Amino acid sequence: MNNYSYVIGVDMGGTHTAFGAVDARGHIPCRGQILTGDYSTGESYTNALGDAINKLIEGNDLTGKVRGIGMGAPNGNMNDGTIAKAANISWAKTVAVPVAQMLTERTGLPCKLTNDANAAAVGEMTYGAAKGMKDFIVITLGTGLGSGIVANGQLVVGHDGFAGELGHVIAIRHNGRQCGCGRHGCLEAYASATGVARTAREMLDENPQKQSLLRNIVYRPITSKDVYDAAKQGDELAIKIFNFTGELLGAAFADFITFSSPQAIILFGGLAHSGDFLLKPLQQSLDKHILSVFKGKTQIVISQLNDAEAPILGASALAWE
Amino acid sequence: MNNYSYVIGVDMGGTHTAFGAVDARGHIPCRGQILTGDYSTGESYTNALGDAINKLIEGNDLTGKVRGIGMGAPNGNMNDGTIAKAANISWAKTVAVPVAQMLTERTGLPCKLTNDANAAAVGEMTYGAAKGMKDFIVITLGTGLGSGIVANGQLVVGHDGFAGELGHVIAIRHNGRQCGCGRHGCLEAYASATGVARTAREMLDENPQKQSLLRNIVYRPITSKDVYDAAKQGDELAIKIFNFTGELLGAAFADFITFSSPQAIILFGGLAHSGDFLLKPLQQSLDKHILSVFKGKTQIVISQLNDAEAPILGASALAWE
Repeated sequence: MNNYSYVIGVDMGGTHTAFGAVDARGHIPCRGQILTGDYSTGESYTNALGDAINKLIEGNDLTGKVRGIGMGAPNGNMNDGTIAKAANISWAKTVAVPVAQMLTERTGLPCKLTNDANAAAVGEMTYGAAKGMKDFIVITLGTGLGSGIVANGQLVVGHDGFAGELGHVIAIRHNGRQCGCGRHGCLEAYASATGVARTAREMLDENPQKQSLLRNIVYRPITSKDVYDAAKQGDELAIKIFNFTGELLGAAFADFITFSSPQAIILFGGLAHSGDFLLKPLQQSLDKHILSVFKGKTQIVISQLNDAEAPILGASALAWE
Repeated sequence: MNNYSYVIGVDMGGTHTAFGAVDARGHIPCRGQILTGDYSTGESYTNALGDAINKLIEGNDLTGKVRGIGMGAPNGNMNDGTIAKAANISWAKTVAVPVAQMLTERTGLPCKLTNDANAAAVGEMTYGAAKGMKDFIVITLGTGLGSGIVANGQLVVGHDGFAGELGHVIAIRHNGRQCGCGRHGCLEAYASATGVARTAREMLDENPQKQSLLRNIVYRPITSKDVYDAAKQGDELAIKIFNFTGELLGAAFADFITFSSPQAIILFGGLAHSGDFLLKPLQQSLDKHILSVFKGKTQIVISQLNDAEAPILGASALAWE
């Protein structure tokens, strides 16, 4: 057996693709990036990415020391290594592009690919809060709500590689909000940065007499960060927005636990840093809605991984497997 | 390696405990049963069961040919082999009884124990519709709604052994029916034999002018079998009851698929034999509610295992693993 001491983690976003070499303890000694949007075909993109990775390896004296590449990408499919139907990637909107295989051809390294939330789950298992856990769920609270589910120590990707779309369970069955997926009432239409901003807009409109710091924001759309800042200043409406969001999340988590009975649900992403404004109503709602056999058994944990490093760490962890 | 050709399957119900020897092709050459209710302690029960199994093995010339025992039991816990908090078992209502271990001590055979729905799932994977599948869900539609979830070829039992309580996801969030678990709106309060009977009662009361064959049943409670019989005769109200049940099940299945993206959902139990009365509205509702990436990918299948044999087969399959 060779003494591979590093893996490469790649975090593909709609704008940037960041990558780095990662050692077994989760340190990232060197990193790089390319602009995702600069490439109009899957081939030109993977060639540029492969070349940049090769350069990183050679330039940092890592030749022969890298075990493989792990990549997190929008709609990345673990089963076949393709990116397909990714709304933000021009060359993968309608076709399935075998990115993992193309990257292997360019670099000579084995490559595993999955979506960002699954990568985050493997990252938590390898370097983070889920070390030693065999059953847990990572919920990423970003622009949308993503999820990575681990059961029996393995990612649950389903027969087609696309399992774990918990942002699209139905939280509100009647008169639910329109979701980006075309349906109504999806959890991510409420419990995400975008969802919180929509709740803010709605609550301001529905309570025109109610004073709120959020009314001072007039020249641009309200963000979830604005709501957090207002809540910190004791703004009642902002606190009500978090209560509403936490209540919905807690009720949804009760259903998730019914499914896979995880040891922990780990929250990741911007909104997860809202502290007790979100966590308290979430935990209260979970305690209220949970089936008695599961009561008090599942910890709700905030990821301790650095937001800037976690996507690369998570993706890289795939390559140790 | 020894040439073990048989396993013992045990199906523990509140009234009877049935067991049988099973070969690798799913034949049951011999079987027996004891009365569950005859025993007031876990010890007397497992001693009687162990003795009866020993007798079956000796009497049928199977000594040395049996690999182990698999047992399906109410609230059976795969992780630690106990039965705990089982409402229908007098000696396991409040304590966890290590039934698997006690049975091993009495018979000298390794014993695995899980709940009935998980046993059904392993049975379908070993002998039934899920042969060769790595990702599927079995839904048992009996008095309640049970579920066995398989992901990556393994039962999802969760960190505490109790995962897969899909009868207790919330189907109706507002003004949902009281469920036996103490909460409101659980799927099994609607989509189960008991749930269908409740729907019948409600719809009859809510539509006093509406004619229905079900109004002829006056000296006893209406059963789901009555509703099926009426539907077969073209009774509009009975058909409406199935439409309502199928609609709720289909919407719930859309959420389940979002979680684990199974290749198939296999329906088992009395209500599963309602044919197109249930299947058609279920499939329509599923198609309507499913996230587009999963559309048309998950088959809805009726179990082909014999209702009388399946519980023993399913439980026995645990012992091959």
